[in-house]
Amino acid sequence: MVILGIDPGYAIVGYGLIKYEANRFGVVDFGAITTPANMPFPDRLQSIYTDLCFLFEKHRPDALSIEKLFFNTNQKTAIDVAQARGVVLLTAKINNVPIFEYTPLQVKQSVVGYGRAEKKQVQEMTRQLLGLSAVPKPDDTADALAMAICHAHCSGSLFLNR
Amino acid sequence: MVILGIDPGYAIVGYGLIKYEANRFGVVDFGAITTPANMPFPDRLQSIYTDLCFLFEKHRPDALSIEKLFFNTNQKTAIDVAQARGVVLLTAKINNVPIFEYTPLQVKQSVVGYGRAEKKQVQEMTRQLLGLSAVPKPDDTADALAMAICHAHCSGSLFLNR
Repeated sequence: MVILGIDPGYAIVGYGLIKYEANRFGVVDFGAITTPANMPFPDRLQSIYTDLCFLFEKHRPDALSIEKLFFNTNQKTAIDVAQARGVVLLTAKINNVPIFEYTPLQVKQSVVGYGRAEKKQVQEMTRQLLGLSAVPKPDDTADALAMAICHAHCSGSLFLNR
Repeated sequence: MVILGIDPGYAIVGYGLIKYEANRFGVVDFGAITTPANMPFPDRLQSIYTDLCFLFEKHRPDALSIEKLFFNTNQKTAIDVAQARGVVLLTAKINNVPIFEYTPLQVKQSVVGYGRAEKKQVQEMTRQLLGLSAVPKPDDTADALAMAICHAHCSGSLFLNR
C-alpha cells in the first residue's frame, strides 16, 4: 500500500509518500508544500489544498497518516496550524483517502522502538528504513516520512497480503 | 450585495445571509449546519464543507464575514473550532468569495453602537435591523447574522451604489 504522511502547518506542510509491501519499504515521493508569509491566510490554505489535491491525484495513496494535534505554548501558531490541519483532513476526505492519526509517542515507538526517542534518532531510523542517503530536509519532510512509517507498522499486518 | 455571516464551529456552524442595498437590510436565509457528535471528526469537516458549498452555490454571496479567532480556556475545543474554521475559509476561497474578518469588539460596535454591548443587546439589535419577529435560534445563527450586519456597516459605503 501507498501511505501519505503529513506534518501539517500553514508555512510548511511536510509530506512523505512511501510504499509498504511484504514488510519492505519504498520511497515514492517526499518534500514540502510551502506558502509565503506575505500571502493572505485563506490564500495559503487554498494553496495547500491545491498542492495536496495534486499529490492525492498523482499518487493515489491508500491512507493518510497525520499527527494528533497537541498544544504548544504559542496559541496563535497552534490555531493557525489547526486551521491548516482542518484543510488537510478535508482534502483527504474529498479524495476518499482514509485518515489515521497517531500521537508523537506512537510515532517514536513505532519508528525507533521506544517512545522517548529523540528527534534525531527518529530521523536517522527513518533514513535507514527508507534506504535514503541523507535525512530529508526540512524537518517537516522527515517528520512526514516518519508518520508514514508509523502507519505502515501500525497497520502493516492488515495489509501484508494485499 | 449579499453577505454571508458565519459563526464557525464543528458541532454547529451558524450562518446568516442578508442583502444590503441603499442602507436597507433584507434577510435572505439563516440557520445552522450541525454535525452529530458520534461522527468521525474528518467526516464532520466534510459535512460542513458540503453544506457550505450548497449555500455558496445557492445564494452566491458577495462576501463572507467571519469572526477573528480568539482563544478560550478550552484548548481542545479551540483547536477543533480552528480546524473547522480553516475549512470555512477554504470553502469561501474555492467559491471565489472574498473573506472579511472582524473582532467581537467590531461586531458589537457595528451592530449596537458600542463595543461593550452584551450578547442579548447584539441579538435584539440584529432582530430589529433585520425586521425579524424573534431572535433566531440557536445563538450561533443570531451571531452569524450579526457578523453579516457588521460587514454591511463596515463596507457599506463602498457598495452603496452597486
